[in-house]
Amino acid sequence: MIKAGIIGATGYAGAEIVRLLTNHPEAEIKWYGSRSYIEEPYANVYGSLFEIVTSSCAGEDLEKLAEDVDVIFTATPQGYLGGVLTESILSKCKVIDLSADFRIKDPARYEAWYGIHHASPQFLPEAVYGLCEINREAVKTARLVANPGCYTTCSILTLYPLVKEGLIDPQSIIIDAKSGTTGAGRGAKVPNLFCEVNESIKAYGVTNHRHTPEIEDQLGYAAGQPISLNFTPHLVPMNRGILATCYATLKNGVSQADVDAAYDAYYKEETFVRHLEGRKCPETRYVKGSNYVDVNAVVDERTGRLIAMGALDNVVKGAAGQAVQNMNLMFGLEESAGLMAIPMAF
Amino acid sequence: MIKAGIIGATGYAGAEIVRLLTNHPEAEIKWYGSRSYIEEPYANVYGSLFEIVTSSCAGEDLEKLAEDVDVIFTATPQGYLGGVLTESILSKCKVIDLSADFRIKDPARYEAWYGIHHASPQFLPEAVYGLCEINREAVKTARLVANPGCYTTCSILTLYPLVKEGLIDPQSIIIDAKSGTTGAGRGAKVPNLFCEVNESIKAYGVTNHRHTPEIEDQLGYAAGQPISLNFTPHLVPMNRGILATCYATLKNGVSQADVDAAYDAYYKEETFVRHLEGRKCPETRYVKGSNYVDVNAVVDERTGRLIAMGALDNVVKGAAGQAVQNMNLMFGLEESAGLMAIPMAF
Amino acid sequence: MIKAGIIGATGYAGAEIVRLLTNHPEAEIKWYGSRSYIEEPYANVYGSLFEIVTSSCAGEDLEKLAEDVDVIFTATPQGYLGGVLTESILSKCKVIDLSADFRIKDPARYEAWYGIHHASPQFLPEAVYGLCEINREAVKTARLVANPGCYTTCSILTLYPLVKEGLIDPQSIIIDAKSGTTGAGRGAKVPNLFCEVNESIKAYGVTNHRHTPEIEDQLGYAAGQPISLNFTPHLVPMNRGILATCYATLKNGVSQADVDAAYDAYYKEETFVRHLEGRKCPETRYVKGSNYVDVNAVVDERTGRLIAMGALDNVVKGAAGQAVQNMNLMFGLEESAGLMAIPMAF
Amino acid sequence: MIKAGIIGATGYAGAEIVRLLTNHPEAEIKWYGSRSYIEEPYANVYGSLFEIVTSSCAGEDLEKLAEDVDVIFTATPQGYLGGVLTESILSKCKVIDLSADFRIKDPARYEAWYGIHHASPQFLPEAVYGLCEINREAVKTARLVANPGCYTTCSILTLYPLVKEGLIDPQSIIIDAKSGTTGAGRGAKVPNLFCEVNESIKAYGVTNHRHTPEIEDQLGYAAGQPISLNFTPHLVPMNRGILATCYATLKNGVSQADVDAAYDAYYKEETFVRHLEGRKCPETRYVKGSNYVDVNAVVDERTGRLIAMGALDNVVKGAAGQAVQNMNLMFGLEESAGLMAIPMAF
Repeated sequence: MIKAGIIGATGYAGAEIVRLLTNHPEAEIKWYGSRSYIEEPYANVYGSLFEIVTSSCAGEDLEKLAEDVDVIFTATPQGYLGGVLTESILSKCKVIDLSADFRIKDPARYEAWYGIHHASPQFLPEAVYGLCEINREAVKTARLVANPGCYTTCSILTLYPLVKEGLIDPQSIIIDAKSGTTGAGRGAKVPNLFCEVNESIKAYGVTNHRHTPEIEDQLGYAAGQPISLNFTPHLVPMNRGILATCYATLKNGVSQADVDAAYDAYYKEETFVRHLEGRKCPETRYVKGSNYVDVNAVVDERTGRLIAMGALDNVVKGAAGQAVQNMNLMFGLEESAGLMAIPMAF
Repeated sequence: MIKAGIIGATGYAGAEIVRLLTNHPEAEIKWYGSRSYIEEPYANVYGSLFEIVTSSCAGEDLEKLAEDVDVIFTATPQGYLGGVLTESILSKCKVIDLSADFRIKDPARYEAWYGIHHASPQFLPEAVYGLCEINREAVKTARLVANPGCYTTCSILTLYPLVKEGLIDPQSIIIDAKSGTTGAGRGAKVPNLFCEVNESIKAYGVTNHRHTPEIEDQLGYAAGQPISLNFTPHLVPMNRGILATCYATLKNGVSQADVDAAYDAYYKEETFVRHLEGRKCPETRYVKGSNYVDVNAVVDERTGRLIAMGALDNVVKGAAGQAVQNMNLMFGLEESAGLMAIPMAF
Repeated sequence: MIKAGIIGATGYAGAEIVRLLTNHPEAEIKWYGSRSYIEEPYANVYGSLFEIVTSSCAGEDLEKLAEDVDVIFTATPQGYLGGVLTESILSKCKVIDLSADFRIKDPARYEAWYGIHHASPQFLPEAVYGLCEINREAVKTARLVANPGCYTTCSILTLYPLVKEGLIDPQSIIIDAKSGTTGAGRGAKVPNLFCEVNESIKAYGVTNHRHTPEIEDQLGYAAGQPISLNFTPHLVPMNRGILATCYATLKNGVSQADVDAAYDAYYKEETFVRHLEGRKCPETRYVKGSNYVDVNAVVDERTGRLIAMGALDNVVKGAAGQAVQNMNLMFGLEESAGLMAIPMAF
Repeated sequence: MIKAGIIGATGYAGAEIVRLLTNHPEAEIKWYGSRSYIEEPYANVYGSLFEIVTSSCAGEDLEKLAEDVDVIFTATPQGYLGGVLTESILSKCKVIDLSADFRIKDPARYEAWYGIHHASPQFLPEAVYGLCEINREAVKTARLVANPGCYTTCSILTLYPLVKEGLIDPQSIIIDAKSGTTGAGRGAKVPNLFCEVNESIKAYGVTNHRHTPEIEDQLGYAAGQPISLNFTPHLVPMNRGILATCYATLKNGVSQADVDAAYDAYYKEETFVRHLEGRKCPETRYVKGSNYVDVNAVVDERTGRLIAMGALDNVVKGAAGQAVQNMNLMFGLEESAGLMAIPMAF
């Protein structure tokens, strides 16, 4: 059994790692790190785990933890792992970071978008961007995986084959994304109260959301050129789910068949990416609670643009599920181990 | 008192006209037309009106109704009014149509997008597109008003000053709109059941939603040229509200100050359109239950695009409220009579 | 115009007083008291009031405020008004308190249930319990009104005629109440976050909720004897609304007709209490946004019990609306002034 | 592998059986019966199963199906199985019926509450009421299992130890239950539309809901006497979950410790029933998506009553999960096989 430690185990992403690993056939959780609930039984924080998890929360001594476990998941605020990661830790165990600290290769770019000084840029070169469907082989041998963001996973997987195959103008991309409220985290803030979110929708982070450079970097690698794009996230009154509706100008002569063929070429063998049939539009309910991503695109001959859509569960494939998928790859397990839950639908 | 008849009084838009007119200081409802509930007390359909409305539902003999009332609201499916409207009716009373039948001047274009033969194109020339803030003077003298669609009202009001003033490239417009579920109507269909809509979001009508030509027509008039655009609606798990997030390429040299100035020039004197301050993003909860539209736009110098956002309550300003606003104009009343309800917020 | 000051104007109850008084024909708000937002424009807190309310928030100097206004609404935590109320204040202006400080006549009982020492019991005798339908005449001449709680208004109005007429055994009463989440207030606490409330229901305060003694006192006055009852509140994933489902053993021989007659005797002339027809069950959506209370009861001959149900909007009739109704009575206005909004229904 | 057929596979309960059996280690689905979707790919009805279930829906020839499978699940309307069941079917395969047809031993009582003539009362004696925690041994050898109702499972498991141990007066029981909207089924009816359910709560079936006799029967067996009780269901704006809040008069001298001891005696060894600690109240989110039932009770010494609460997921333990649990027992599998999913929590 792989021994895992989780830092930030009581946030929504951390709690989802707990949910997934508790039923994982080849992993067990040794450490429920939570700064806010030290010594409190974990099941007191999430009653769902009553009689299932009997451990209590612990603090976050990463050096010590590295000696006790095979893998550490850091589901922590931006800047945390960058501030504490050492060669000593990485020499003892693998680290899967759910924050943005090691997602962006250029520390100046990281600092510009996040407003945080990067305290350990020396690990940036070796960090592997853990989007399994794209970087599978590199993940397998990584010591440090930068687990992608929720919006970015959805946006990149939706657009990757189209950009890579040169079917769309990469400088024309506009991503309009909609997220459930778990994406806003479990912090006690007025804007996240039930009555502030319920029965409303709004955009936020317009022109400056931090997931923008991550999407630009990854799609830029695919395009073979630096790209700029617009990314606008919205808050939706639901718990889980991200839908990314992406717009781009088609390259001359590109047909619906070309688009469908590109998706199939990249995703036909992928367990977790489903290219929908015909003109079907992804719905977040159909991936809820699962590690699936549903994608599809419609060519609009009238305007010469394409509308590509992707849906995933932001706490599973957008966070914890992808982290476990990375763990599976890093330890030579079946990639889908512990991740085959069927979407809830309702 | 103005005497009003409502055809389709038990759908959501019709019911909202009932709610607004029941408290209107200068109008009274004489006819609650509802094919499905003939002779049933209206308050049996909407318990909210128990002891407030004591009338029963009636059928839909438009010719007879025209003799008894000053204005008829048709909150009916596409094709209904086009199929029954006569000169005799229009000679006796004013008609405000909440369907699309008289919104599109070119009957061939109507038929292409709606798949319905237009049975009375002779009334198209005189029909006034009832977007009060834009066509106020024409509405005042109209016999027949084509009340705009919900998505279209939101999209057009958000973009109109920018298109009219030439601040954006009108051929670059992409509208990503999100609607509450009242927009799907009160028909008993599986996709509109609570458990099918709740906890999910999806796009629909991608590339072919019927509100597209209406937006193109109206913004085309503003631009002084025919335009094509992308309009993608989404279904959101909430009752009321539309948010339109609009993207367009800025004309050379256009600044945030230019954009703000355009909004202020067109909307500063408007009671129901509020141009938000600074970078504030419209939220549908802040217009819920009211006739207000909140708009704002953010210039993205990085990409050379603009993100313009508009929010309204789809059953008020997007349907019934605008219909009443049109009625007020047509009968020389205070434009805001009966429409000054403050948004609910929560 | 009556000049009003609101202490606690940015909580949900306070904000609803703002919404109601802003459109009130004979009152105007002079003071938006909010400890957390001093000097911040009120419309920055509630964007719904942008361009409608232009004032900023102020502090809470009650003595000074009493000189400037005719009535003070205190939508404040328990213990606040009890701690600051003086004869000097009451001699200058009327006070309507939305907290529990003056609802319970016996200060020892208040202290036992609330765990708060009552600092000004000398005002308890003159405080009028502001349940307008029951204490209308006393309210008219009161200086100090204790505005009833949300659960209590709903529970008492549902049961009052049945207890008063001796149709049920007052010692057998069980009240199972369900509330929307505005009832939990606007404090930034984890249990009130969207993702903690959404898609779930739970009881809380079982056997010891603070509204229990208030209901017992008022129904005890009606019964002519002290009574004990069970009151269990539940948190429902919706913004507004309380439904109280009440159970009691019928007195011998009491029929459905007796029950209906009692409701009609007490409520037929009441504007805001609606006794539903037949076996119709109250639904909170049918009172949403309004000052109405819908009640009905069904006799179960099989078990010898009665199920009485009441529904109201907890922030209107359960708080702000009732406060305004009290204000109207205290100042000799039409009781329903500013309160005739029709329920939203959807 | 056990071969299973499902009649009514596209309703919510049927779809949940599909979700559970698709991942079941020792069963496989051979027949997706659905009258409304014959020959349509199952994944067209539930997009969640795209690329997971590739079969199409079929009709409902039970005699033929009995030859092809080991077990038939009937997730069908009341009266269906009673109308078609034969000895021939039961001689070939086991049947687990999710309708009420074989839950009530007295056909006259069934007919009185359901208004349906029972067409095959000859199978009533052998039908086993499939509440596994209570009738485990009988289920193991049954040919025909009557799978309990959702409300009834929750109510009975909450009260059973208290009634069985004589801690409460069985004639004093009042059950106030709250259900998510999947409980209303997938039929296209106006009252189940999103905008009719959302942001509201209501009681329904007051005094005459069909689950009443089932609860009375089962608790009556436990009490050793026929009992009458009040059961009032409510519709809650959420997809899944039932909370039953139960009230009863305590027998003289019964303490909180007695109540806790009774729960522990009956449920300590049960995998799926969790007796919460201290005064913790069950929340439906903590059982969502799982087969767990959370129960607890609080003694109110002030009134001499007890408030017992139970929470489950109505489509899992309240329907499909319990059906699979019964299947596991009937075929000698591990009782929890395929049922150990951890609750979603959010």
